[in-house]
Amino acid sequence: MKNEAVYAILIAFFLNIVISPFAIPLLHKLKFGQNVRDDGPNSHLKKAGTPTMGGIIILASIIITTLFFVVGNREVQTVLFVTVGFGVIGFLDDYIKVVKKRSLGLTPMQKIIAQLIVTCIFAYLLSSYVGLDTAIIIPFTGGKTWDMGLIFWPFLVFVVLAVVNAVNLTDGVDGLASSVTVLVATFFAAVAMSIQSAAVPIAAATVGSLLGFLLFNSYPAKVFMGDTGSLALGGFVVAIAFVLKMPLFILIVGIIYVAENVSVILQVAYFKRTKKRLFRMAPIHHHFELGGWPETKVVTIFSIITAIMCLVGLIAL
Amino acid sequence: MKNEAVYAILIAFFLNIVISPFAIPLLHKLKFGQNVRDDGPNSHLKKAGTPTMGGIIILASIIITTLFFVVGNREVQTVLFVTVGFGVIGFLDDYIKVVKKRSLGLTPMQKIIAQLIVTCIFAYLLSSYVGLDTAIIIPFTGGKTWDMGLIFWPFLVFVVLAVVNAVNLTDGVDGLASSVTVLVATFFAAVAMSIQSAAVPIAAATVGSLLGFLLFNSYPAKVFMGDTGSLALGGFVVAIAFVLKMPLFILIVGIIYVAENVSVILQVAYFKRTKKRLFRMAPIHHHFELGGWPETKVVTIFSIITAIMCLVGLIAL
Repeated sequence: MKNEAVYAILIAFFLNIVISPFAIPLLHKLKFGQNVRDDGPNSHLKKAGTPTMGGIIILASIIITTLFFVVGNREVQTVLFVTVGFGVIGFLDDYIKVVKKRSLGLTPMQKIIAQLIVTCIFAYLLSSYVGLDTAIIIPFTGGKTWDMGLIFWPFLVFVVLAVVNAVNLTDGVDGLASSVTVLVATFFAAVAMSIQSAAVPIAAATVGSLLGFLLFNSYPAKVFMGDTGSLALGGFVVAIAFVLKMPLFILIVGIIYVAENVSVILQVAYFKRTKKRLFRMAPIHHHFELGGWPETKVVTIFSIITAIMCLVGLIAL
Repeated sequence: MKNEAVYAILIAFFLNIVISPFAIPLLHKLKFGQNVRDDGPNSHLKKAGTPTMGGIIILASIIITTLFFVVGNREVQTVLFVTVGFGVIGFLDDYIKVVKKRSLGLTPMQKIIAQLIVTCIFAYLLSSYVGLDTAIIIPFTGGKTWDMGLIFWPFLVFVVLAVVNAVNLTDGVDGLASSVTVLVATFFAAVAMSIQSAAVPIAAATVGSLLGFLLFNSYPAKVFMGDTGSLALGGFVVAIAFVLKMPLFILIVGIIYVAENVSVILQVAYFKRTKKRLFRMAPIHHHFELGGWPETKVVTIFSIITAIMCLVGLIAL
């Protein structure tokens, strides 16, 4: 199993390296350069023209790698469905940005409905196809579970939407979402290995794919993952967490996602009440950038925090 | 054992965070700012004034953490001796740079003699105190060993000096030596855990200490590790590798160290023969910098390569 996981990482890594040199110029040619959102720091305006939708490369290498190892496994199929499902929503969003030259893609209503559909199918797969019950592991209790009963389903919908949105917000600095998520995926791959879960290959494939993607996505980025990538990664994280009965652990290992999401909520709420800003800019990574940190420092510090919290997650198990 | 390792990482990490805010201004005050070597790229001249000798912080947190877990263990004592021994040599080197205002510290002859002394004591500890034989594991053979017999001792001396020098060369870009070595240390910690070696705590302590150090050492660095740090880390890597009978694995997981060292050798040999340069500048990280990569990109790419080679190292076991 150790070697299986390592091979999955290596295959996904090299697939990404093989695909990227063809895919990145192609994305560029097809004019999938991002109209950088005008709600980020001014220093990000120079990023206009960098091709986006690199998430397609991530998805392709995950899918191909997974096919190498398991086609018939239900846990893997379910995680893959959620990853690809949200990836497709992200792709539509990215695509509309290009075609309609609108900077913000799908309307919020279209987005939420599409996400709800994928989430409901995920819930169905989890209960009827994988056959999981509604118990989840409580951190720091030595593996005790809590059977949530019917509350499990609204809880699932809430967590899926929150996490996918949070990973999407995290993708605002070169290499940030990929660096943080490669560590989170490593955590889930390690846990899956230790309990001999069938989900190991897809977690390992995600680790490898992101390591490969980082070669091109780290500062200065030659390609962005776009919503295609960030929604897919959000889908992956939340799906593997639920398959392992560990959604509560996202609060620990995904602390950066949580911080990104909460910073936006706080910023808006605070501004509504006081007409002042709580952070220099939200999500929180922009706050540190405007405080003088180079992008790369944001990525390094957030990655180290994630690594430490993944270790805490191991203790919490 | 899993939890022991994780706690060692966390303790070393937090010790580093606690010590650094006091130690860094102190190093600055004591004028331990590095006279940046004039044999690096011009862009590095702006680094003059950044305090060096941060290796002291790394060593302090490793030593204290190790004391928490094991005082009486011979493997740990041996690895700790080599780490601290080379750290002291590095410290003398750094210190002389400050006092004598010479940019290059100890004379080459002083350095090599001091290193030989530490290496010979290491060899003695390994055979007579730890009680290791002269067999080493051959990569990619499923764990087969080769008993080197008497050749083992000159081999050990050669490997120790080569690795320590190589890690020293690797420390030429903000965060590079620490990023690469935190991954190498993680590899050895994982291997030590899997074979239930007594050396786990010191490997874990090194991982944690470097994660903490990276918060301050990543670009733009607030502190350099200096020779104090890079020689200590070289000593750690080579000592843990020998204790685990895995010196040949340094060629795999330490591929960056190897590349740094070999690039210098090739550059000099090539220049002597042709009067032309093979690389824009050696060691190899400067070659990529002068080719247009920002420092942070060198660190990211070299770290990803190391991570991949650590996975290869797992397969090779």
